[in-house]
Amino acid sequence: MAGFELKQTDSGSSARLGVLATAHGQVQTPVFMPVGTAGAVKGITPEQLKQVGAEIILGNTYHLMLRPGVETVEKIGGLHKLMAWDGPILTDSGGYQVFSLNSLTKLSDDGVEFASHVDGRKFYLTPELATQIQMRLGADVIMCLDECTPFPCESDKLHKAVERTLSWARRCKATFDARYSMLDTRCQMLFGIVQGGIDLELRSRCAAELRKMDFDGYAIGGLSVGEGHENMLRTVEHTAPLLPEDKPRYLMGVGTPGDIIAAVRAGVDMFDCVMPTRHGRNAYAFTENGPLRMRNNVHINDSSPIETDCDCYCCRTYTRAAVRHYFNVNEMLGPILVSIHNIRFYQKLMTGIREHIKKGDFAGWAREKLEKYAVFLLV
Amino acid sequence: MAGFELKQTDSGSSARLGVLATAHGQVQTPVFMPVGTAGAVKGITPEQLKQVGAEIILGNTYHLMLRPGVETVEKIGGLHKLMAWDGPILTDSGGYQVFSLNSLTKLSDDGVEFASHVDGRKFYLTPELATQIQMRLGADVIMCLDECTPFPCESDKLHKAVERTLSWARRCKATFDARYSMLDTRCQMLFGIVQGGIDLELRSRCAAELRKMDFDGYAIGGLSVGEGHENMLRTVEHTAPLLPEDKPRYLMGVGTPGDIIAAVRAGVDMFDCVMPTRHGRNAYAFTENGPLRMRNNVHINDSSPIETDCDCYCCRTYTRAAVRHYFNVNEMLGPILVSIHNIRFYQKLMTGIREHIKKGDFAGWAREKLEKYAVFLLV
Repeated sequence: MAGFELKQTDSGSSARLGVLATAHGQVQTPVFMPVGTAGAVKGITPEQLKQVGAEIILGNTYHLMLRPGVETVEKIGGLHKLMAWDGPILTDSGGYQVFSLNSLTKLSDDGVEFASHVDGRKFYLTPELATQIQMRLGADVIMCLDECTPFPCESDKLHKAVERTLSWARRCKATFDARYSMLDTRCQMLFGIVQGGIDLELRSRCAAELRKMDFDGYAIGGLSVGEGHENMLRTVEHTAPLLPEDKPRYLMGVGTPGDIIAAVRAGVDMFDCVMPTRHGRNAYAFTENGPLRMRNNVHINDSSPIETDCDCYCCRTYTRAAVRHYFNVNEMLGPILVSIHNIRFYQKLMTGIREHIKKGDFAGWAREKLEKYAVFLLV
Repeated sequence: MAGFELKQTDSGSSARLGVLATAHGQVQTPVFMPVGTAGAVKGITPEQLKQVGAEIILGNTYHLMLRPGVETVEKIGGLHKLMAWDGPILTDSGGYQVFSLNSLTKLSDDGVEFASHVDGRKFYLTPELATQIQMRLGADVIMCLDECTPFPCESDKLHKAVERTLSWARRCKATFDARYSMLDTRCQMLFGIVQGGIDLELRSRCAAELRKMDFDGYAIGGLSVGEGHENMLRTVEHTAPLLPEDKPRYLMGVGTPGDIIAAVRAGVDMFDCVMPTRHGRNAYAFTENGPLRMRNNVHINDSSPIETDCDCYCCRTYTRAAVRHYFNVNEMLGPILVSIHNIRFYQKLMTGIREHIKKGDFAGWAREKLEKYAVFLLV
């Protein structure tokens, strides 16, 4: 029931077309997943998400385990019910936020203790717990708990983090398999995460060890943490080919439109990033002709839409003048409308990527777009 | 083209059924108008407004003249274009906010000077300007500039305010007629406003004088400012019958579901109030069984909708647990969803009112509902 099918590989690059099948429907890859941090893509209803073409969204286990808590999500019928989203959901393991939002974590080989950034309440997360929580949330794709390292990171710490990530991956897999050994059909998938910073040898070792564990998919984690586009890309281009060809590859937390195109070219299938929504809330609109800052006075009397050819609700409905006005008076519709537009921009980007892989002219198209979208690197 | 047709009068009360025809479509009365303060019903798209059954909305001239300013609204094609709302719009005159949001107003018989509550910029509003601004905004229904008095208000001040309101009404009418003397068809309407606090004699005098000026409709203003339900109702029951039968009657800024039912019974056709949206943003949900406070822990694991029989997007889509969670984590969807539900509650109230007037059993139905909805007076 749940699984991945590789449909086509590009002749001029490592780009791939595939289908990720889940209990909540199929997803065409390469795919971009909008981020539903705390049980909602901020300000956007599931109806609006469907309208902009989102097929799968990401939920943050860390935020959900704090509020409303896994017991509550379970009691009301799972994360899909909470979010009112009937499509596929991927949850992260919580690890990234544990390390990035908390300074008082106590890390051991067994697991990690942390204090909630909301109220200081103590939590303890182990690979077993992280897996069980995501299974109980009802996620379609579950991520292994990993140790996320900052950038830069000293070599010794990086090595230890990779070993711990591998040990934790084994424990996540065991927890997952124990549950599914009792069930006929697998309706959830478990992805392993390759760590290792920008150390290519470490990435190789981590990927090889994870492959032995036979996951349903493989993520490249620990990037987009300040290493820059070139380092990121070099690491992805090194790591992606080390992963099984018949399994989906997911680059976590990436990125700009250019990052995504370059990573697709290197053979990545799945992406998530807060950029379209977070930038949207800050009045930054992605367009084919570069970014627009919607608070800018230049839009004050502009009766054209953010993007003339865009089919999103914002562009079909509102003038730039109105969007600028909404930001100017702190009206919620400002952040909502630009978030909608930006998610649509990202979804159209993915549609374009898939179309050009299918047509066989992806490599040339990607080169052009990478040049054009370089302007988005400067955000 | 623009006008009002009285369709039916209730035998058991003064309630009326009518149709308000505007250049942007017809409106069945009695009608409730959601408030679109600064060019938007806060957080709600026009698509969502249509879905909850809103037929006409209100815009605040005061807020719009400050930001984005009438020149901007005009340049981009009018208030309908700014708001992306193609249905009828009624604008208030700005008077209410000038008096309620500013302590440093300088009032004379000519007009009123005030400093913007946003940046202190000085503005001067006269009856002529208020009328011209609303005409330039492109409002379907335009309100005369009036002097709004607080409650309580000493008799001398109240008398002077009524005289000034009448003098200003004449000037608004002259400004409006001067424009329309040059046009074949009237695509806008001008309403006069009866002032006089809770002084019934003053209300009588004001109504009689306004009738002589022959407006397209008549509003009862200066209520819902702290006088209480009984005083409000006594004043409405006294004033409504003094207004021409063949013109629409609009009770400004009112009110709770009970206020509305009682005023319809007294012969009022039109209402506006921030209550459904402001309360919605504060997690207060209107239901047939009384109010729900959606931040309350009692909803934490509740998988039922806010109201089981409600057909609004919120109730069709989300659990109480999700709505509570959204308020708990400050997610925008909380205020948005409860605003949608509350506007739908008000629209269903108006549909019920119209149906029971049509069926001829309004008086009995109103008595029952007034008892049931008394709980909403305590907000």
